[in-house]
Amino acid sequence: MSQSPKKPLAVLQKAVNKKVSVRLKSEYEYRGRMSNIDPYMNVLLLDAEEYLSGSLHSNFGKVVIRGNNVLYIKIDKDF
Amino acid sequence: MSQSPKKPLAVLQKAVNKKVSVRLKSEYEYRGRMSNIDPYMNVLLLDAEEYLSGSLHSNFGKVVIRGNNVLYIKIDKDF
Amino acid sequence: MSQSPKKPLAVLQKAVNKKVSVRLKSEYEYRGRMSNIDPYMNVLLLDAEEYLSGSLHSNFGKVVIRGNNVLYIKIDKDF
Amino acid sequence: MSQSPKKPLAVLQKAVNKKVSVRLKSEYEYRGRMSNIDPYMNVLLLDAEEYLSGSLHSNFGKVVIRGNNVLYIKIDKDF
Amino acid sequence: MSQSPKKPLAVLQKAVNKKVSVRLKSEYEYRGRMSNIDPYMNVLLLDAEEYLSGSLHSNFGKVVIRGNNVLYIKIDKDF
Amino acid sequence: MSQSPKKPLAVLQKAVNKKVSVRLKSEYEYRGRMSNIDPYMNVLLLDAEEYLSGSLHSNFGKVVIRGNNVLYIKIDKDF
Amino acid sequence: MSQSPKKPLAVLQKAVNKKVSVRLKSEYEYRGRMSNIDPYMNVLLLDAEEYLSGSLHSNFGKVVIRGNNVLYIKIDKDF
Repeated sequence: MSQSPKKPLAVLQKAVNKKVSVRLKSEYEYRGRMSNIDPYMNVLLLDAEEYLSGSLHSNFGKVVIRGNNVLYIKIDKDF
Repeated sequence: MSQSPKKPLAVLQKAVNKKVSVRLKSEYEYRGRMSNIDPYMNVLLLDAEEYLSGSLHSNFGKVVIRGNNVLYIKIDKDF
Repeated sequence: MSQSPKKPLAVLQKAVNKKVSVRLKSEYEYRGRMSNIDPYMNVLLLDAEEYLSGSLHSNFGKVVIRGNNVLYIKIDKDF
Repeated sequence: MSQSPKKPLAVLQKAVNKKVSVRLKSEYEYRGRMSNIDPYMNVLLLDAEEYLSGSLHSNFGKVVIRGNNVLYIKIDKDF
Repeated sequence: MSQSPKKPLAVLQKAVNKKVSVRLKSEYEYRGRMSNIDPYMNVLLLDAEEYLSGSLHSNFGKVVIRGNNVLYIKIDKDF
Repeated sequence: MSQSPKKPLAVLQKAVNKKVSVRLKSEYEYRGRMSNIDPYMNVLLLDAEEYLSGSLHSNFGKVVIRGNNVLYIKIDKDF
Repeated sequence: MSQSPKKPLAVLQKAVNKKVSVRLKSEYEYRGRMSNIDPYMNVLLLDAEEYLSGSLHSNFGKVVIRGNNVLYIKIDKDF
């Protein structure tokens, strides 16, 4: 049933240019197009929106999130 | 009584495609099918559900949890 | 009086298949049979029980605890 | 649609001499011209301003922020 | 006055089989015979006693304390 | 407009013997002459003054601050 | 004016056998003769005294402080 599944970092790499939600250890979450990501999970987001406890907090343009703050990265279903 | 037991990471690797619960250092827990995992315990979950203090909080599709946040990974008994 | 004492990690490795208590930095403690352990102190427990501040909280089957959360591992006296 | 996108650290390196906002894990934020940055995200800011919870707190000249404190680095849109 | 003083880790290694107090970052302290220690300061204690804010809390047999939790290790004077 | 700007650590190294303010993750700040600094940002300060939330708290002579505590190092303008 | 200043760790190494104050990230401070120190800032103190928020708390004999807890090490002026 499983043909060699992809490693988590390879799946993230493959999701480049897709929309993602980056949740941090705090209650902040950033949604945007993932322009790139590296193995440390440093993420470059475009057209990023910052959510605090689920509601829109501010709009960013281009932002690099330092990987060590990341709790999870959710890949939007429609991709 | 013991034939060379498997190392923890090897047991996790062998549980790929099984259902697991990933508990974080916070009160959050994620349940889903473990599509893959790497030695740092970065986990790719499919059909993930987020539980907060034991009750369902939200449904995710595909999510990568960064390994350093993991407290434990429980492998469902029926596997 | 001392014939070359064993290093802490070697003692843990030798306790594989014995019953242990794994105390975390939080007030949680996990008791079960230590199926395996690696040098980072990632631990695989079988028939694990979770205790919170000393009272039984829930029963797990097979669980891998990520080593960086471990405060100490106590090896049951009768082993 | 994607011509090999740049890695997050390369994008930061390319933003040298542009205006950025460096948000820390605390509520502090530093805005200024990013004179340089290294792969650990140590940042040298010139004409830096310190904001606390969004309001100007003090003016710095030349400051080096240690990378491990960084939550994200936002690159100003007009660059 | 000083003939090449010993490095901290060498002094700990030389104190194997002596009684020590291991203080953690929390208010917990563990006293017992230090059966062994490694360079990461993982400590194996025998006949260990757990003290919380100075008063005896519980008795352990054999316990391995993970080094990263250690604040200091005090070597009993009479050794 | 930019002739190869200096890396943050090189700028700090070049500021040796200048007056700096070293801000820690806590509300403490240390001001003095930076006698030396290494790549981990361990800093040797001379004639150091400790400030707590902006007011003078105590006077030190020679102090080495461990780099991992550093939030930022500000180089005094007049240098 | 500066003849190649010494690196912070070299200055600490040169202060072996002098009296120092070791301040931790918590409000604890340890004063004593620094018998030795290694590059990780693990410190061996003799005739150590523990201060809490500035007042004497207890007397230690020989103690090894794990380096990662250190905020700063102050070298007594009269040395």
